[in-house]
Amino acid sequence: MKPTNTLVSPLLTDFYQLTMAYAYWKSGRHEVPAVFDLFFRKNPFGGEFTVFAGLEEVLRFLSSFHFDVEQIEYLRGVMPGCEEGFWDWLGSIDCSAISVQAVPEGTIVFPRIPLLIVEGPLAIAQLLETTLLTLVNYPSLVATNAARFRIAAGRDKRLLEFGLRRAQGPDGGLSASRYCYIGGFDATSNVLAGRLFGIPVAGTQAHAFVSSFTSLNDLRETTLVDARGKRRDFLGLAQEYRHALGYRQSNEGELAAFIAYAQAFPRGFLALVDTYDTLKSGVPNFLAVALALAECGYQPVGIRLDSGDLAFLSREARRMFRAVSERYRVDFERLTIAASNDLNEQTLLSLNQQGHEIDVFGIGTHLVTCQAQPALGCVYKLVEIDGQPRIKLSQDMDKMTIPGRKEAYRLIGASGNPVVDLLIQAGEEKPRPGQRVLCRHPFDEAKRAYVTPTAIVPLHRPVWRGRPVPQPSLNEIRAYVLEQLASMRQDHLRSLNPSPYKVSVSEKLYGFVHSLWMSEAPIAEIE
Amino acid sequence: MKPTNTLVSPLLTDFYQLTMAYAYWKSGRHEVPAVFDLFFRKNPFGGEFTVFAGLEEVLRFLSSFHFDVEQIEYLRGVMPGCEEGFWDWLGSIDCSAISVQAVPEGTIVFPRIPLLIVEGPLAIAQLLETTLLTLVNYPSLVATNAARFRIAAGRDKRLLEFGLRRAQGPDGGLSASRYCYIGGFDATSNVLAGRLFGIPVAGTQAHAFVSSFTSLNDLRETTLVDARGKRRDFLGLAQEYRHALGYRQSNEGELAAFIAYAQAFPRGFLALVDTYDTLKSGVPNFLAVALALAECGYQPVGIRLDSGDLAFLSREARRMFRAVSERYRVDFERLTIAASNDLNEQTLLSLNQQGHEIDVFGIGTHLVTCQAQPALGCVYKLVEIDGQPRIKLSQDMDKMTIPGRKEAYRLIGASGNPVVDLLIQAGEEKPRPGQRVLCRHPFDEAKRAYVTPTAIVPLHRPVWRGRPVPQPSLNEIRAYVLEQLASMRQDHLRSLNPSPYKVSVSEKLYGFVHSLWMSEAPIAEIE
Repeated sequence: MKPTNTLVSPLLTDFYQLTMAYAYWKSGRHEVPAVFDLFFRKNPFGGEFTVFAGLEEVLRFLSSFHFDVEQIEYLRGVMPGCEEGFWDWLGSIDCSAISVQAVPEGTIVFPRIPLLIVEGPLAIAQLLETTLLTLVNYPSLVATNAARFRIAAGRDKRLLEFGLRRAQGPDGGLSASRYCYIGGFDATSNVLAGRLFGIPVAGTQAHAFVSSFTSLNDLRETTLVDARGKRRDFLGLAQEYRHALGYRQSNEGELAAFIAYAQAFPRGFLALVDTYDTLKSGVPNFLAVALALAECGYQPVGIRLDSGDLAFLSREARRMFRAVSERYRVDFERLTIAASNDLNEQTLLSLNQQGHEIDVFGIGTHLVTCQAQPALGCVYKLVEIDGQPRIKLSQDMDKMTIPGRKEAYRLIGASGNPVVDLLIQAGEEKPRPGQRVLCRHPFDEAKRAYVTPTAIVPLHRPVWRGRPVPQPSLNEIRAYVLEQLASMRQDHLRSLNPSPYKVSVSEKLYGFVHSLWMSEAPIAEIE
Repeated sequence: MKPTNTLVSPLLTDFYQLTMAYAYWKSGRHEVPAVFDLFFRKNPFGGEFTVFAGLEEVLRFLSSFHFDVEQIEYLRGVMPGCEEGFWDWLGSIDCSAISVQAVPEGTIVFPRIPLLIVEGPLAIAQLLETTLLTLVNYPSLVATNAARFRIAAGRDKRLLEFGLRRAQGPDGGLSASRYCYIGGFDATSNVLAGRLFGIPVAGTQAHAFVSSFTSLNDLRETTLVDARGKRRDFLGLAQEYRHALGYRQSNEGELAAFIAYAQAFPRGFLALVDTYDTLKSGVPNFLAVALALAECGYQPVGIRLDSGDLAFLSREARRMFRAVSERYRVDFERLTIAASNDLNEQTLLSLNQQGHEIDVFGIGTHLVTCQAQPALGCVYKLVEIDGQPRIKLSQDMDKMTIPGRKEAYRLIGASGNPVVDLLIQAGEEKPRPGQRVLCRHPFDEAKRAYVTPTAIVPLHRPVWRGRPVPQPSLNEIRAYVLEQLASMRQDHLRSLNPSPYKVSVSEKLYGFVHSLWMSEAPIAEIE
């Protein structure tokens, strides 16, 4: 199991991981057992949920973690003066002494719940930090963004990811395609994502295709073999329909382009209709060619709108489709109307309010750049060393860590929805269905509640025990995300003022955190 | 010459490029000569300049452009029904029939100036679109962002890029490191960027290192061999200084961590001082260890602040350094103060206003995600086909393209600064030094000006003529960026209300654009 991107190697890390590794080694502490939690503190996009993604690549990275001779040569050059024994040690390590627990990929997660719990020799677990963060942060961020677009668009719309050209380079784009699919998109324009991950690919034509034809004279081939095998005067048919429909203003180059495209894909004719004028030229030309296709026994697919007032244009286009359906007794009423053009979550919500006839949304820039919040702030914190719990103190309560090894459970309420995630100390008595449990806010003394769960879902599973535990497929993960989105209380998921989902600690863990905090935090002396 | 990222291949594209290619092929137009311009319409970040980057990877991509058997197999599956001849053609193409002109990598560029001009057979030039956009958009965006941070920080500060964990996955991070260096950063934390591109790497320790030590008992080694080869009681020395300085509140685990780090890197001791309390614990512990080091003949490096009021803390730390310098006659006054923690361009400007003592800035999230504008909107537009100029019409004047093959010149004014970029038609008489030239706004009739340039810089150079033209090194490109930043009028570069730099067209090109526009744009009929 190798990383999808060959650039993923132990060198894909921050330099300080290596200087720290040397300092650990030099002080003889590199093999002290340590536990790190990887988690985030705040849901992105002003929302109240996050979709965890990136786990498969994490396991691929752990599988291949090893410094080769050439990498060590480079490191010697940038870390002069380190003792020989360190390089021997560095060349010898892998992840066989590491164990990792994780929430399953695609799980809807909340702040402070460890997404990964990494245990093993201090220096090795430390060396993994940056790469793990890189492999989890963006995938989880963009999967969450995709899920938000899915919620905004509704379950019955088709969502296409078109972001490759606006992502952070080649595998920014590739990650976007993969994790947007997990988050609930239906297809991508990214062909490489199709080939590597089996994601359905989608797309038809760009403006350049339409404008590359200047007149009907550009058509070297004017016929089309119809569905019954008979060669027909396709250009003539299209022109007749155009004339019959009274479309005099439609652009001739555009008509030529549509004819050429329909000749190439008689069963996949979807036309980009806004190159000249959507309602005066694009839709009329589309309908002329679509009717010619229908006469040849092929069902056209539809149109794509890429500018203008998408709600209005989609309604007008649907109206024109209906009119032609009635006049020619063809089945054009339900033709696909796809829309693209700088769509974001808010535009989708606004389109819903206005009423629209769009079936398919193609979304690029705002989806992949996560404009509303372009980074998820996952952190990787030491919570235990040599059996001793460690706490990261901070004047800012929100930035404190919850020390020690922990377990996490999702408590299901009477309605069947998840109601709270509960962190307990490792080894503490687990919550049980039907048994009332006191759930406390980790830092705020005043916030506490009893919950009597109807069911309990343990959140962590072992995913690495010196070797990877097999994981579900991309399609299984995607289905899991969609299923959870349906089973959550919808007020946690909505865009406007969502209600926070509760993440609590047990009474015992609460007491433990606070006694450790009291013993470690210095009391300021006011001078 | 292969792409740095092995994922870069002709499949790293939008699916519609392939459906269009088939439609071009099917209509016999795939080899018609075409010209495409790659350009952007608006400078990012509310600014008035952009740094062009990504060219070397563009050339690597063109060099390796070829569909292999396995890729074609995949495409057959997703494009059923395409004729055999198309797959033969697709398997046979490369970029030997393509020629590309470009502005040199690192050039400061402005809207509408083509960054790349791609000429060649229509279908091949079209197939390049998405990958070229992906390879130019983010690199140029992040290089521009880096240049803005450089301007905000000033020339004498050291800037470190720390963004790997917050970038869009592995090579989002790698691109960020590479192009931030081009834009004027001094080093990166990304070790892989160091190894692949020779960028200096930087970093020392994280909070986990500091908190992994709980007490002085964790130090298995308490001595240090001094600069003259004598073994000294290093722990004892540090404790003596701590005592002498009256630092009673400093955290003992932190002191142990600093001692361990100094033992590992006696010549590279830079300490992260905010784990417990910057002024009560971190700086005192640092100074105790720094004095012990100095006594052993090693000069310490400095501290890193990662939270709190950076301006205040840096001034206080400097004050403490001075006090110790005077008391012990050591050279600590100019010790490095590095700062990190969610810095952005505005924070840097605000720190400058407050007055601070920071020498080095470590910048991550806001730099690599380009939070203020996470995508640069480069587009790739057909401007000529079969010798005929093509214009992309739009109700929005700003979205119109400038048709035909063009040349671009930078006109230098009397002061020696660039004053205007001028686009002319290919073959038109070039502007000459000392000769007055009329510069017109491409779309706004009212905006025109005479310029008498003192010098002329042609902006485009051939970079690909069926094979790559050798390009400058990363360090040469970086120097070129910094040199241009110094030679531009500073009001174009400033953060607040920068003045736009003029991009004009010649009288002849103006007339040509507008006559083509009049002839192609339909006149609406008001009904």
